Amino acid sequence: MEFYLKASLKTSADPAVGKEDIEKIMAEAEKTILAKGAPEGEGAKIKSWTLGDKSIDVELTSGRYVRVHDAAMRLKKAFAESLGKTHKIGIRGVESETFTITVPADRDLKNKNIPYVKSVDFKDGNLILALEVGEAEMRNQVPDRILTLIEDKLEQGDYGAKAEHWNLLWESADRPFPYTNDPTEDMLKEGWLKRGSSRGQWIHGPVTTRLFRVFEQIVFDEILVPLGYDEMIFPKMVMWDVWKHSGHAKGIYPEIYYVCPPKTRDPEYWEDVMDYYKVTHEVPVEMLKDKIGDPIGGMCYAQCPPSWGFFQGETIATESLPVLIFDRSGTSHRYESGGIHGIERVDEFHRIELVWLGTKEQVVETTQKLHERYMHIFNDLLDLKWRKAWVTPWFMAQEGIAGVAADEVTGTTDYEAPLPYRGSEGEWLEFQNVSINGEKYPNGFNVKSQSGEKLWSGCSGVGLERWTAVFLAQHGLDPENWPPEVQKRFGKMPKQVKFL
Amino acid sequence: MEFYLKASLKTSADPAVGKEDIEKIMAEAEKTILAKGAPEGEGAKIKSWTLGDKSIDVELTSGRYVRVHDAAMRLKKAFAESLGKTHKIGIRGVESETFTITVPADRDLKNKNIPYVKSVDFKDGNLILALEVGEAEMRNQVPDRILTLIEDKLEQGDYGAKAEHWNLLWESADRPFPYTNDPTEDMLKEGWLKRGSSRGQWIHGPVTTRLFRVFEQIVFDEILVPLGYDEMIFPKMVMWDVWKHSGHAKGIYPEIYYVCPPKTRDPEYWEDVMDYYKVTHEVPVEMLKDKIGDPIGGMCYAQCPPSWGFFQGETIATESLPVLIFDRSGTSHRYESGGIHGIERVDEFHRIELVWLGTKEQVVETTQKLHERYMHIFNDLLDLKWRKAWVTPWFMAQEGIAGVAADEVTGTTDYEAPLPYRGSEGEWLEFQNVSINGEKYPNGFNVKSQSGEKLWSGCSGVGLERWTAVFLAQHGLDPENWPPEVQKRFGKMPKQVKFL
Ligand SMILES: Nc1ncnc2c1ncn2[C@@H]1O[C@H](COP(=O)(O)OP(=O)(O)OP(=O)(O)O)[C@@H](O)[C@H]1O
Ligand SMILES: Nc1ncnc2c1ncn2[C@@H]1O[C@H](COP(=O)(O)OP(=O)(O)OP(=O)(O)O)[C@@H](O)[C@H]1O
Ligand SMILES: [Mg+2]
Ligand SMILES: [Mg+2]
Ligand SMILES: [Zn+2]
Ligand SMILES: [Zn+2]
Repeated sequence: MEFYLKASLKTSADPAVGKEDIEKIMAEAEKTILAKGAPEGEGAKIKSWTLGDKSIDVELTSGRYVRVHDAAMRLKKAFAESLGKTHKIGIRGVESETFTITVPADRDLKNKNIPYVKSVDFKDGNLILALEVGEAEMRNQVPDRILTLIEDKLEQGDYGAKAEHWNLLWESADRPFPYTNDPTEDMLKEGWLKRGSSRGQWIHGPVTTRLFRVFEQIVFDEILVPLGYDEMIFPKMVMWDVWKHSGHAKGIYPEIYYVCPPKTRDPEYWEDVMDYYKVTHEVPVEMLKDKIGDPIGGMCYAQCPPSWGFFQGETIATESLPVLIFDRSGTSHRYESGGIHGIERVDEFHRIELVWLGTKEQVVETTQKLHERYMHIFNDLLDLKWRKAWVTPWFMAQEGIAGVAADEVTGTTDYEAPLPYRGSEGEWLEFQNVSINGEKYPNGFNVKSQSGEKLWSGCSGVGLERWTAVFLAQHGLDPENWPPEVQKRFGKMPKQVKFL
Repeated sequence: MEFYLKASLKTSADPAVGKEDIEKIMAEAEKTILAKGAPEGEGAKIKSWTLGDKSIDVELTSGRYVRVHDAAMRLKKAFAESLGKTHKIGIRGVESETFTITVPADRDLKNKNIPYVKSVDFKDGNLILALEVGEAEMRNQVPDRILTLIEDKLEQGDYGAKAEHWNLLWESADRPFPYTNDPTEDMLKEGWLKRGSSRGQWIHGPVTTRLFRVFEQIVFDEILVPLGYDEMIFPKMVMWDVWKHSGHAKGIYPEIYYVCPPKTRDPEYWEDVMDYYKVTHEVPVEMLKDKIGDPIGGMCYAQCPPSWGFFQGETIATESLPVLIFDRSGTSHRYESGGIHGIERVDEFHRIELVWLGTKEQVVETTQKLHERYMHIFNDLLDLKWRKAWVTPWFMAQEGIAGVAADEVTGTTDYEAPLPYRGSEGEWLEFQNVSINGEKYPNGFNVKSQSGEKLWSGCSGVGLERWTAVFLAQHGLDPENWPPEVQKRFGKMPKQVKFL
């Protein structure tokens, strides 16, 4: 890996008068300012330098340490001090004449449309990126972000084989499943639900809704109340700003539903659209496209990011930690893969999201308690066959970042269950997860603790459609076959609307 | 009001051989086929006719009855029968050479970009619309829709002064209000809530959320359980199709948040966007605009329309009527007028929506019971000063339709309350409504009853933000001053996160 920069440091007058000072700085730099902070011998190097009419031109190379653009800034500072004092010559700015990054690679990039990158060449086992950056970009670490991007891509195999890991933590004993139908099909037959007008969307009648509420009640009785979680209401329309802080802006674009506001709410502006509809009875989608604003964000995707606005920029009193909160105030929306799915994979779904925030110890302990309660629920109340596994952290998956978390504590536990109708070899369905997200969110949203100790957080998404999918797939639709705790809470079957 | 059509009925051969038959039909038509269904003397008139090489050309005029385009179709049928039998000449189609609608008007139209309308002229107290329509449009009632549109516009005064009516039905006695602050400002000071990152959006902390749930519980205990409403889950992303059936496609464009799906969920397609973000830390909104699909609909605006998909096209058994359902599964979103508002007017809000469906008598009776229960809640439990008024039906307001409902039963009752902080002259805030929507929805979504009797429906939107805004504005933030029934349900003040 090599950075190369041919930089021109613009001077306010002919630098020739300061040639000696410049020579001195150049001669020492590799040992002093261009070495500072780097391991022995790994600082930036000066390949050559010359003086122009009104510039000091220098060729720099570097590896990972004291990268060429940092090196140029350090030189700028040194020249400014030295020439300013003795010769009243100022350094006006740093221009990059040639800037390349050379990265060993086993293949070319698919996307070469990268900001500030003029060209990408794949040659002799290397990717050579020619950058077009100004001083502002060099100061703002744009070259570093470009390198990280390229290295991430190479590691991920350009989405070819994203490194996902999966380690079994616990699994129920085997058991027979007398019911092996697809519950969605049976529910449709029974009239429990109907397809909504959008893809992956359902209208739930009284029976499935009651089941959702039974599960919600179980989460209340067994977790939220005894463990002392407070209910909050998290926003459900999510602005880019939130996803920038949460990291989702890195990678969720393929799966979100985008939201655009009208350009104005002046009815006159919309009169032609309304007139068009009233005459043709068709919505003029082409006209609309011109009349709506740019996408301002999307519908709720992961449920916790918008909660962080409540804590953003704050310092939390020690007495308030750990903060234990949850939200169940609305829908999540994802553009899932097409094709016909049942309720187990939908574009519009309902979750209870738990979020906790505290010191590392508090977060780890809270997570532990949660796992114990879930174990009790799935074994003793819902009587499921299930397992849990340690997987790639959810945010890494959602942001498209490769690799594993930094330590053995941060990460996601997926709760998965088999769907008997898919056969014994069928994929296990993730029906919820529990994550320790480390410092990620407190850092991203700038939340601090009174004690100065670093804050950690965790979250858990209870998918009501997924619980229902798993529960019905394993127990069937007849309440008589349901475990007693569910039967009890479910009560009498709600009356259903009879259609002829 | 006059329709004028110069139509050319294309014949498969020279019609001259059938001249006598044609003359006969033309001579009788005004008394027979062009008069059928119209009041005496008000059918369509034939101004002139001639025979072309391969056409019968006719000038027609009419008022509201047997409109010229219907008249042309009737003539086509008569000629086809007569010439087909005797001369084996067919009528190939009807072309409109000139088609005008003349409507008395006191002013010109603002929007003249109306589909199938070539020109609009305002002259001598008339609007003259020149239409460009083919046979399909004439058959599909396009000219009729255009006339209705123009007449609606003239009646509404082009949005200048939409005729809204308002009749007081009931009002509480006057009372003093010791608390006169803006509760949102006080709640912000107390840290009960924070602004979300989108306009008109809040993040509710444990206290306001608890209050929402107290109100929800009251609605459960006092209405939903005793009156036997079943909970359902209505979709929250609403497709054009739903709004076409509900009528909202006529007019909600200025106030909805539009939803666009990604064009594909192939990560490769989005790689340049992700790369852009990772390098610049800015979301490339311009790139996104090209990569998202057309708007497929919007976020939930009125809560009930998407529930109708459950009943669409069905015939409901008599034993299932009345159907009483409700939904509280998610957020509603409206692009409200800008400026700073508190929680009383927000872009993202939470409602319990009740919907009922039955015969006219059942719907009227259900509505009556609901009004009684609400009266009890607001007087005895929430101890509010409030009033109710008979207003323009909500759907008419939302569809931008002028006028009042067809009868004295169909319509909306708004529940309104004063906000003491706005002063004694302040506008009263609508905090919920109850509507009888007549046959509108069962017709729009094609829902029938077993008995054949016409189905009616009603709905009521309980706005939790609005209840909270009104309750706190009148009682203040100190639970000690709240009515006992609310205190009791609210319980101990939830612990709040303390910020330094
Ligand atoms: N499309 C969906 N339909 C229903 N529930 C979902 C869906 N996507 C996610 N969930 C729920 O939200 C929880 C947390 O979301 P997460 O992003 O971890 O899911 P995921 O990893 O995308 O799941 P999967 O791999 O099955 O798509 C899941 O455990 C599940 O309960
Ligand atoms: N912007 C909003 N913020 C909070 N609640 C709202 C909002 N708009 C509507 N609601 C709630 O939904 C209910 C039904 O909606 P409806 O369309 O009748 O309201 P509206 O007539 O638009 O109200 P307003 O005239 O105050 O804007 C209202 O009674 C109110 O409780
Ligand atoms: Mg997924
Ligand atoms: Mg409104
Ligand atoms: Zn989360
Ligand atoms: Zn409604």
